[in-house]
Amino acid sequence: MSFEHDISRCFSETIGEAGLDRSAFEPVLAQTADSLAELREVREKSELPLLELPRARDDLIQPAAVAERLRRSSDQVVLLGTGGSSLGGQTLAALAESPFGPRAGRPNLHFLDNIDPATFEALLDTLDLSRTGFLVVSKSGGTAETLMQFLTLLPEVQRKLGGERASERFAVITEPHANPLRRIAQRHGIEILDHDPGVGGRYSALSLVGLLPAMIAGLDPLAIRQGAAEVLERALTGNPADSQPAIGAALNVALLWQKRLCTTVLMPYIDALAPFGLWFRQLWAESLGKDGTGSTPIRAMGTVDQHSQLQLYLAGPADKFYTLILAAQAGKGARVAPELAEDQALSYLAGRTMGDLLEAEQRATLETLAANGRPVRTLVLPRLDERAMGALMMHFMLETIIAADLLGVNPFDQPAVEEGKRLAREHLSGMAGKK
Amino acid sequence: MSFEHDISRCFSETIGEAGLDRSAFEPVLAQTADSLAELREVREKSELPLLELPRARDDLIQPAAVAERLRRSSDQVVLLGTGGSSLGGQTLAALAESPFGPRAGRPNLHFLDNIDPATFEALLDTLDLSRTGFLVVSKSGGTAETLMQFLTLLPEVQRKLGGERASERFAVITEPHANPLRRIAQRHGIEILDHDPGVGGRYSALSLVGLLPAMIAGLDPLAIRQGAAEVLERALTGNPADSQPAIGAALNVALLWQKRLCTTVLMPYIDALAPFGLWFRQLWAESLGKDGTGSTPIRAMGTVDQHSQLQLYLAGPADKFYTLILAAQAGKGARVAPELAEDQALSYLAGRTMGDLLEAEQRATLETLAANGRPVRTLVLPRLDERAMGALMMHFMLETIIAADLLGVNPFDQPAVEEGKRLAREHLSGMAGKK
Repeated sequence: MSFEHDISRCFSETIGEAGLDRSAFEPVLAQTADSLAELREVREKSELPLLELPRARDDLIQPAAVAERLRRSSDQVVLLGTGGSSLGGQTLAALAESPFGPRAGRPNLHFLDNIDPATFEALLDTLDLSRTGFLVVSKSGGTAETLMQFLTLLPEVQRKLGGERASERFAVITEPHANPLRRIAQRHGIEILDHDPGVGGRYSALSLVGLLPAMIAGLDPLAIRQGAAEVLERALTGNPADSQPAIGAALNVALLWQKRLCTTVLMPYIDALAPFGLWFRQLWAESLGKDGTGSTPIRAMGTVDQHSQLQLYLAGPADKFYTLILAAQAGKGARVAPELAEDQALSYLAGRTMGDLLEAEQRATLETLAANGRPVRTLVLPRLDERAMGALMMHFMLETIIAADLLGVNPFDQPAVEEGKRLAREHLSGMAGKK
Repeated sequence: MSFEHDISRCFSETIGEAGLDRSAFEPVLAQTADSLAELREVREKSELPLLELPRARDDLIQPAAVAERLRRSSDQVVLLGTGGSSLGGQTLAALAESPFGPRAGRPNLHFLDNIDPATFEALLDTLDLSRTGFLVVSKSGGTAETLMQFLTLLPEVQRKLGGERASERFAVITEPHANPLRRIAQRHGIEILDHDPGVGGRYSALSLVGLLPAMIAGLDPLAIRQGAAEVLERALTGNPADSQPAIGAALNVALLWQKRLCTTVLMPYIDALAPFGLWFRQLWAESLGKDGTGSTPIRAMGTVDQHSQLQLYLAGPADKFYTLILAAQAGKGARVAPELAEDQALSYLAGRTMGDLLEAEQRATLETLAANGRPVRTLVLPRLDERAMGALMMHFMLETIIAADLLGVNPFDQPAVEEGKRLAREHLSGMAGKK
């Protein structure tokens, strides 16, 4: 799997003074050599579980069986989980689903990553629980939102199906050590799959956390890992200029340092990458947003945000770096019949396809951003499939880890959110009306 | 309709030096008196059609009939349109729908606001065209994406149903003057509804552009307008300190000027407001992002983004202003059975409901943001219904218009995007493979 990574429109020599000076970029890129060397070393020593996942195989035996059980017995599968427990699966499953429902013969996947009681009520009103599977995902086994979802759903399913049949409708992913979710699952005879304690939520898409939902959706998990392995192989080179993730990290950080670009916009022109944008948004924000540094990730979508955000992108403050993710689209779709577009004002559409228009729009946005002095790079995929998705995920995980190194922050923790979790538990305990 | 607008956690006296000084805020607020006076004047003279909509009635007679026709004859209705032609309808329809599909007896609404050929193919593979209605919305009648959607769909429907039955499956909203979409609709005997030329796309939610989809979804359009009318009535006071939209605009602009807060985060804790966040994002970005000024809108969602963006919000760069939209949630949902939560680590959930947890989380996020010196305000709704949605929409439209006045930009144009549209047409015309 290779995608084309074009960074030419990020520099002052191309887009004028708003662009990055090569002299500011080169030293930052050179600095990534240390990160690459360290990543190579931890990989050789198998010290970073995330980097072992692309080659792993045995860890998918139990997930494959669970996916098969849930697929056979369910018209829909609901994933209970939030943040990193949900976004990887959402991102991958989008490859197999459409906005109009699942493909024939595949269960509909719903990702319940929030705790709005109205949504929960709609779920109970709408779904046939006897044909619904539930996958409960919490790494720590103590995530308040996920436990609340699970503890209010389980009795409903038990009431409708009886205890034993209810337990068969569930599977749980959590760490191997004793924790509340694991204990409850054990007590009710619910199958448990182990979450690798060494893989953090936002880096877990290539583990069973992302791949079990992908398998339920009917995707090939090994092709996903293959794409990731190919990117990993090429990325950990000795020369940063040959490493696309190092280049991407250096661009982001140099633009932040030299040009004060505090925002990084990821804008795919592929509908199926809409959840990918949300996955990236967590990865980037939680990994880098600490010690007063980091940049703010924004998920935009082409072409629709040309009619929403592009005015701001072109003429608002020059504080953003743009990454467009594109695929070859020309010729896709039916051609507009010339007699339908005989209207003079529509002649440019006659004989064209939707893919032609999409490709023309991609190009126009790219050129207009550059012409307005906005740094923009492109990642161009030959096509979007499992392999490409695995490649994209590995690329952006490495880019994020290397960017964290440059910024001097730890990409794997999220210390600031603990206080809020403690406060929420405290408020809940103190609420009036406790039974 | 009244919502509580609490701005106390925006000031240095409350959250420390990262907050706004009263002395910087008061003059900006005073400056909004001019905007309010001007809005009162154009309203008295009926010069701004947007402000006439809340009291309008006759303009809904034809839309009501079209909604009824499409509802009776369709299992699903697909809206073809992009940007302001789609987001208002999406936002309102979310009040009636759930992530698990439509409520009983109501058609499923799909908003096709993009031109990915894969999505389009999925639509044709999935939907029964004989039970699908199509609403085509383009103010100018020449939006390339919408016309491409329409011109590739119409022949498919004609092929399956025959010409006359196909035309009955469609309705079109466009301006009264001659334009390509109107001419094609006329030629095929498709019913046309007039888009008010004086109401721009991103300000059109309270016109038939938003209300026709709302009616198809089974909502009460007059209740939406009533909520908007109530906000409008109170907002155009002589004293800015009594006008919530003026206060909101002054806060945003003063924080941008004094504290360089270049980002405004709208974070509802209500699932049904997810599209509202996208609607606001267009309104704010396209209205203010010009002449190098404006601030960048971000749509976040509580609680899920606590597990994705909150780390950055609390510990990253202090460049954001936060608006939480909350509703009373305590007691909603089933209580967690104490025997299920007998686990020591879960005792705080015993006897609690999902709504209790949501309310505790809302409060915890609010307090944690303030404790970390991040300016945050809350809008608290008694409940989310048509009236509240109309109120929210009018509040944010006024806030945006007043903010534009303060920034010295025109809230109603979007000049920067024209160049890209021209380029896209040019690229499309120049593409190889033209038939």
